[in-house]
Amino acid sequence: MDSELLKIRHSAAHVLAAAVAHLFPEVKFDIGPATEDGFYYDFDCENKFTTEDLPKIEAEMQKLIDQNQTFERSVLSRQEAFETFSQKKQTYKLERLRDIGEGEEISIYRNGDFTDLCRGPHVSSSGEIKAFKLLSIAGVYYRGDEKNRQLQRIYGTAFDSREALDGYLTQLEEAKKRDHRKLGKELELFLIDDAVGPGLILWLPKGNIIRTELQKFISSELEKLGYMMVSTPHVAKLDLFRTSGHFPYYKDAQYPPIAERATLENNPDLTCSQLMDGLEKGSLDGFLLKPMNCPGHIKIYASRGRSYRELPIKLAEFAAVYRWEQSGELSGMTRVRGFTQDDAHIFCTEEQLPGEIAECLGLVKTIFGTLGMSDFKVRVSLRDPQSDKYIGRDESWSKAERALEIAAKSLGVPYSLAPGEAAFYGPKIDFIVKDVIGREWQLGTVQVDYNLPERFNISYVGSDNKLHQPVMIHRAPFGSMERFCGILIEHFAGDFPTWLAPEQVRLLPLNDENIPYGQEIFGRLRRAGIRASVDESSEKLGAKIRRAELEKIPYMFIVGNQEQADRKISLRSRKDKSIEGSHGIDCAIDLMLAEIREKRLF
Amino acid sequence: MDSELLKIRHSAAHVLAAAVAHLFPEVKFDIGPATEDGFYYDFDCENKFTTEDLPKIEAEMQKLIDQNQTFERSVLSRQEAFETFSQKKQTYKLERLRDIGEGEEISIYRNGDFTDLCRGPHVSSSGEIKAFKLLSIAGVYYRGDEKNRQLQRIYGTAFDSREALDGYLTQLEEAKKRDHRKLGKELELFLIDDAVGPGLILWLPKGNIIRTELQKFISSELEKLGYMMVSTPHVAKLDLFRTSGHFPYYKDAQYPPIAERATLENNPDLTCSQLMDGLEKGSLDGFLLKPMNCPGHIKIYASRGRSYRELPIKLAEFAAVYRWEQSGELSGMTRVRGFTQDDAHIFCTEEQLPGEIAECLGLVKTIFGTLGMSDFKVRVSLRDPQSDKYIGRDESWSKAERALEIAAKSLGVPYSLAPGEAAFYGPKIDFIVKDVIGREWQLGTVQVDYNLPERFNISYVGSDNKLHQPVMIHRAPFGSMERFCGILIEHFAGDFPTWLAPEQVRLLPLNDENIPYGQEIFGRLRRAGIRASVDESSEKLGAKIRRAELEKIPYMFIVGNQEQADRKISLRSRKDKSIEGSHGIDCAIDLMLAEIREKRLF
Repeated sequence: MDSELLKIRHSAAHVLAAAVAHLFPEVKFDIGPATEDGFYYDFDCENKFTTEDLPKIEAEMQKLIDQNQTFERSVLSRQEAFETFSQKKQTYKLERLRDIGEGEEISIYRNGDFTDLCRGPHVSSSGEIKAFKLLSIAGVYYRGDEKNRQLQRIYGTAFDSREALDGYLTQLEEAKKRDHRKLGKELELFLIDDAVGPGLILWLPKGNIIRTELQKFISSELEKLGYMMVSTPHVAKLDLFRTSGHFPYYKDAQYPPIAERATLENNPDLTCSQLMDGLEKGSLDGFLLKPMNCPGHIKIYASRGRSYRELPIKLAEFAAVYRWEQSGELSGMTRVRGFTQDDAHIFCTEEQLPGEIAECLGLVKTIFGTLGMSDFKVRVSLRDPQSDKYIGRDESWSKAERALEIAAKSLGVPYSLAPGEAAFYGPKIDFIVKDVIGREWQLGTVQVDYNLPERFNISYVGSDNKLHQPVMIHRAPFGSMERFCGILIEHFAGDFPTWLAPEQVRLLPLNDENIPYGQEIFGRLRRAGIRASVDESSEKLGAKIRRAELEKIPYMFIVGNQEQADRKISLRSRKDKSIEGSHGIDCAIDLMLAEIREKRLF
Repeated sequence: MDSELLKIRHSAAHVLAAAVAHLFPEVKFDIGPATEDGFYYDFDCENKFTTEDLPKIEAEMQKLIDQNQTFERSVLSRQEAFETFSQKKQTYKLERLRDIGEGEEISIYRNGDFTDLCRGPHVSSSGEIKAFKLLSIAGVYYRGDEKNRQLQRIYGTAFDSREALDGYLTQLEEAKKRDHRKLGKELELFLIDDAVGPGLILWLPKGNIIRTELQKFISSELEKLGYMMVSTPHVAKLDLFRTSGHFPYYKDAQYPPIAERATLENNPDLTCSQLMDGLEKGSLDGFLLKPMNCPGHIKIYASRGRSYRELPIKLAEFAAVYRWEQSGELSGMTRVRGFTQDDAHIFCTEEQLPGEIAECLGLVKTIFGTLGMSDFKVRVSLRDPQSDKYIGRDESWSKAERALEIAAKSLGVPYSLAPGEAAFYGPKIDFIVKDVIGREWQLGTVQVDYNLPERFNISYVGSDNKLHQPVMIHRAPFGSMERFCGILIEHFAGDFPTWLAPEQVRLLPLNDENIPYGQEIFGRLRRAGIRASVDESSEKLGAKIRRAELEKIPYMFIVGNQEQADRKISLRSRKDKSIEGSHGIDCAIDLMLAEIREKRLF
């Protein structure tokens, strides 16, 4: 975040604390930092804050801002600081004071009659807080530990202009309306069921259509580029993941392993800790719900000898993988325990690397562009030149980094370099996509890997008739079908382009006697491959239209006596909400098919 | 099996034993039953049998058959039987004698100088064994227990005519050539890798094309019938399967459950047996790799209120499920630990049941017919009228059984009734398909279920505005994509119809200068959606043709200077192995597309 904005928000937190102190003099302060989206302050206060308190506090804050209070920094000795906060009976501050190590500078900031233990920085005076708003109240535990006393946190945000604040508040409002958890339920796209398990997604029929259409789209792009689809099991021997290094290294992010049946039966007195220890150390055998597809794809690569003539070999799979997220971190489709990667692995020579990386980036651009997410940037994660933790030859790294940079540059979108952010096994590119309401999402990745080819000792016969080690690229444009669909629901606010819409046309018979004609057209739509249904309820047209609108169906074909007599339909599209009469059926179908084929956005 | 054939084979086993006794007088006999395909006899013999011994034994057997020895049955007292086999020093027979319970009749059969402890029945004389052949030798443990002494088993088969034996031997030979494990490897269709795990299939690119094409085909049929595709996770809480009854009832056929991370961390001293016990009894929580899709589909059904107007609801999924087969029972793709069901569940009213069952059977007929497996029969499994183990009302059972029988009858294929073979929760239909070489395979099933709707307490609002319980149908025409593809590989001997063939056309440039022209045609084929490749090797045409033949590619387009000048191709199809010159490219593509679209067999 912008450092000016950070100062404004951090200062607004102090102004909030000062205002609360004016209204509730007995309050005790813990801490109040700036955050990515605003700021908060944690209070210990007899008064139980409600949202009705917020306008009062805001009014008091505004007063202090209007006074244009100066933010004054002073450096104190530990003794002086201790006396200052003892006098004010600020027990939390005294505890926080103990966190500051010997030899560290102890500073305080004053604005008006409020003094805070604080490293800063701040704006010079409160008048620089041009626009702010308090947003919500939450209960939190002191130091995040539920054994401690509960505090009250007030959240707010602040900006350097009223316009910026308004923009943010509109975005917040819009985001609430678009929340994929809410829309996913209303539009019957997906289901999370406690009995199945937290973080496990069941795709309902309509959501599954969106997912399938996206997969078909990606598959057809992959096919053009010579990828080959494969399919690998969802469970494999622990040893496979020991070879790859995924186990036990990432074991905390995985479902616990499954012990071999024989181990359990033959060692009834083994304790859980011995069992887990044996599985971790490899003295016992077992299985793991697959957290990654790479080992399986490597086994396919290695299933026979390979020649340089075959390279690059590109193996792709829409594959469910399973990871362990803490239950507190789970959220809708975006933080889950099982997800479907649009995964692929490219096995190529070092010479082929630049071309393959460029192709990967081009593919991502095509895919995002088709979905109206052209506003994205890329981040290239490079080595830390000071560190020696990286595997692979220096020269290989330089080449790969150069290839990534060149490819990123030639994409024509903003890009940044992040030295030191590369994994130990290779540099990578991440995609950060902006949705229609301006929020940024980190999506897929293109990752170069020198490590797994080494660990699995895979090879190809080069033109020199000698064995060489291929380089691997891991790439997943969406990353996770679940997460991406969640984002897409919010991006489109559920109003999917026709090619993705679960139902593309709703047929609305004006009255019961028009139902057979509606069904006839339904049959023609279905044969044309258009997803449709007939509203056979006996409700009025207005009610039928409203329902179709709520279900966000792109087109309605209205059929009454007149339409039936003319063998036509009346059309209502979501773009243009008026009803246009007298469309020929073939013509309407052709127009829709063109829109679907071209994957038009709207 | 035919009871006459059974007598012939059982008698042939005795003749085998008699012949072995003539050639190796010190031999000791264990047992020698008839089997589904022939017979065997287990011997304890100093001489280590080799396949070279078999013709000698056969010759001796033929002698005994030519003598037309009478099979004579006698009933003995336990004492007499004991003396008979003691005298002959047949220690195994003495042990087997002890297995015969008090009060059971003890019978022996004599043919010539050979006497066996045997229940029979047998042919009246050895001349009735019209044709036989010894097939192989294997080492087995006495009573199947590896702690016991190893015996030598000689396998053979026998028929009532030379023609029947020859037919069987040809089939055996043919089956060996078609073995999907052999062809799967040669044609690079699938992979089983020890490091991934026994019984777990990795679909290689070419095999994955076949599977995907089959799934597309089934999906399009399902869509016509109003099925809706869904997608559910591969792991779920144990509790879900406790509710369904799949756990712990079928626990021995499942991967062991995964304990909750918290259970493992908080109870390090718990023993494995306590852990498994707690998971089984439900005092501890955990997850299970899903053995079945029904519970997930039920959760989707129950995700909101349902009205009778929505029924039938048909939820379909190509879903990987995981089961535990003993490692000794695993075989290629047909006996595995993970497989993809072409699964669906129909939720309907009782009145809809007959129509839905008939539709299911019709679908199966369409699908098998398309694959040239029109030779199938069905078996209807009904209640045992004597037993009271069945859940669901009597009247419902009668209706469902009648519906299954009527649907089976109207299919126009042979059907049989199997009273007592129904599961406790409902009657079912199984499909037994005959492949081109006459072997029978049990494939998919249509199963009525009154139990799960009850266990999950699902409902719909009827036209009477009251809650009712729907009936469920489980149905999977193929049963398992893995097993079915294995069978299909053998059925077609790898020569898949063009629509399923992983590669449909190979372009064979006559010499290097024709490669660009070949690539141009390749581009046109690809754009038309035809799977093709160009053989760019510098080998002679003959070698290129041989390779394409080995890879069982349906069409070869040969392009030399003449073809290039005329903008044509020469065509070689596997049907007609001669090369036909001068095909227009568009015309050749159109012919192929028609063949693919119509899913022609050959």
